[in-house]
Amino acid sequence: MSLIVQKYGGTSVGSIERIRNVADRIALKRREGDALVVVLSAMSGETDRLIKMARKMTADPDQREMDMLLSTGERVTIALLAMALQSLGCKAQSFTGRQVGILTDNMHTRARIEEIQAGRLKEALSEGIVPVVAGFQGINQKSDVTTLGRGGSDTTAVALAAALKADLCEIYTDVDGVYTTDPNIVPTARRISKISYEEMLEMASLGAKVLQTRSVEFAMKYRVPVLVRSSFNDGPGTLVTQEDAEMEQEIVSGITYNKDQAKVTLVGVPDRPGVASKIFGAISKEEMNVDMIIQNVGQAGLTDLSFTLPKEDARRAKEILLKLDAEIGIKNIAINEKISKVSLVGVGMRSHSGVAAKMFSCLSAEGINIMMISTSEIKISCVIESKYTELAVRTLHDSFGLGESQPPKSEQVTR
Amino acid sequence: MSLIVQKYGGTSVGSIERIRNVADRIALKRREGDALVVVLSAMSGETDRLIKMARKMTADPDQREMDMLLSTGERVTIALLAMALQSLGCKAQSFTGRQVGILTDNMHTRARIEEIQAGRLKEALSEGIVPVVAGFQGINQKSDVTTLGRGGSDTTAVALAAALKADLCEIYTDVDGVYTTDPNIVPTARRISKISYEEMLEMASLGAKVLQTRSVEFAMKYRVPVLVRSSFNDGPGTLVTQEDAEMEQEIVSGITYNKDQAKVTLVGVPDRPGVASKIFGAISKEEMNVDMIIQNVGQAGLTDLSFTLPKEDARRAKEILLKLDAEIGIKNIAINEKISKVSLVGVGMRSHSGVAAKMFSCLSAEGINIMMISTSEIKISCVIESKYTELAVRTLHDSFGLGESQPPKSEQVTR
Repeated sequence: MSLIVQKYGGTSVGSIERIRNVADRIALKRREGDALVVVLSAMSGETDRLIKMARKMTADPDQREMDMLLSTGERVTIALLAMALQSLGCKAQSFTGRQVGILTDNMHTRARIEEIQAGRLKEALSEGIVPVVAGFQGINQKSDVTTLGRGGSDTTAVALAAALKADLCEIYTDVDGVYTTDPNIVPTARRISKISYEEMLEMASLGAKVLQTRSVEFAMKYRVPVLVRSSFNDGPGTLVTQEDAEMEQEIVSGITYNKDQAKVTLVGVPDRPGVASKIFGAISKEEMNVDMIIQNVGQAGLTDLSFTLPKEDARRAKEILLKLDAEIGIKNIAINEKISKVSLVGVGMRSHSGVAAKMFSCLSAEGINIMMISTSEIKISCVIESKYTELAVRTLHDSFGLGESQPPKSEQVTR
Repeated sequence: MSLIVQKYGGTSVGSIERIRNVADRIALKRREGDALVVVLSAMSGETDRLIKMARKMTADPDQREMDMLLSTGERVTIALLAMALQSLGCKAQSFTGRQVGILTDNMHTRARIEEIQAGRLKEALSEGIVPVVAGFQGINQKSDVTTLGRGGSDTTAVALAAALKADLCEIYTDVDGVYTTDPNIVPTARRISKISYEEMLEMASLGAKVLQTRSVEFAMKYRVPVLVRSSFNDGPGTLVTQEDAEMEQEIVSGITYNKDQAKVTLVGVPDRPGVASKIFGAISKEEMNVDMIIQNVGQAGLTDLSFTLPKEDARRAKEILLKLDAEIGIKNIAINEKISKVSLVGVGMRSHSGVAAKMFSCLSAEGINIMMISTSEIKISCVIESKYTELAVRTLHDSFGLGESQPPKSEQVTR
């Protein structure tokens, strides 16, 4: 008998009918003899509905109150699914994040799980009950409700799988698995059948939206095998697991893009020790995440400095830098929001050279200028003008031979 | 400085706009210097929406899961009101039933409060915070969410007022206070400015829907003064408090009616000791609440037995009785759902005789037949045919001189 943690996303539980379908699937699996823990998101659209209500009330709602508000959505779906399972004769019970002992830090609306006290969950399992757990939420030391940020239910599922030493964590979503790139841009994009934690982590952080980054970190740390699959069909999905020889044969596993960042450029910054530290110290103090940084060699003791960060933080960053200006002197501060980051990811890069060179020449052949570059052992990212994103992704996908020979779903019918 | 617990019902917090109005009212009161605790219901319609979803899922939803589902509505309103108060510069924080230490028994969907551990609430008050508390909910010993039944937020408010030894508990609702009878039936019905706990308890149990019965029991037990008033105007409302000389001068304080009951009649029951105990033992074992009971003198060792209970339980009661039939022998079981109970309530009855006689003659003058009678020290109830309800209430209201000389809100305008 295996122990499997299953997570169903918002679209999978988006209506009474769909919740009933999920119940059928679980009851079937349960009859096969496996022990199951189910983690649910709120109905699709519900979290946005609640956020809209809060924004109508006040422009800048308190984070603790946001968590009180947002944590209600999952409680509705878990109660309804537990009812549906019971009506199928399957023993089930709903549990909140608190009830399954998910303890987090105090960062409301983006809390991190610190500990799981799974006693009650184990007890339910030992009684043959299918625990149906509210994803996305926990409590802090004060016993206040916290939420884990967008996609937090993935993290709940993987963290529970780790705490219970489950055999598998299945993430049911509205796509068939992890693709070599966004199939909306590249119709020949291929489902990846197996991918390493490291690659998945890069892809999640770089913009692939299938799994929350934090959930992949958890899976990697505790070696939880994660299977991403669709709740609307029986496809095999994508297994996220430890790296193996097979994976290394592919040079590039996937291509991601991210249009959510902005580039801030400081022109004429004094080129002396301590200046960069002052600049990024002030920015990180405000908890803004700087991604890439480039410093050009300058003239006459001055240098230019560029960095990227989430678009929503760009204006605030500029204000902070303007305050610093008096102290360090900056000639000009420019924000460019029309940028995009395109990245290649693959563990094969470790053993293959020339990947970066090939990427640059592909982009240049299409006349795409590269504004910033950043590399790690298993990824290369280029910042380019936003309008070239789709073109860049398509040409790279082609050049690195990632596509299928035929588009997976042709809409043309031959008579 | 006084400590006041305020409770706002579903219609008072039925929209973003209304929640904002409630926030204005609270912020104003707070600036006057009083300490406040606020208890909220879910937005009007929300609880019914959730119940409908559950019923779509399964005909007979599990009670524990119902509580998980239904307890979400208040969490939405408390978060939104706390945000609204903060945006007005008023320190406020939302708390669930659990967080303010409301411990209940294990009867899901109609739990009773057993204890309140108000430490966290007192702490918030000492910091000048307005705690905004989710009404209607608590937790049981297993730490599962329980709800207190329809109108349970009233009980939350009164129980918190008792635990905090508050000076006053204000129940804000969509009516101006407690009326001598339903103004929809009798336009001259008059707002009662002061009523005793005992009378209010009878009126609540007999069908007046302004306060949950259980909340009045709490208020009476802990001597909490309760002021029922409208959240849409500044009217004086009705004060529920200890009996005083003034109240005793009125013979009848109010008239209530209840159309939610059914009458079950057992014809030809053996007239021997132990039979009634068997019948009502079997029924109470199923947790159905029998209200009135009448046994007629019978002939030839047989008797007729009638009792009333909530309509929704009538069919189940009949099934139980049919099973008993083999054991005790019953000639016939009849259910009458077209009945109504009309009641007079008043502490003045204790010192005035002839009230019952006057009630019977009023009804008989209108040709209304009395099917059952039940009395206590401060009330008289008659079961009549349901179709005569309005007629009976109007004629009694008139005969006992309860109305105003002029209708409170005339729609006629004299030019």
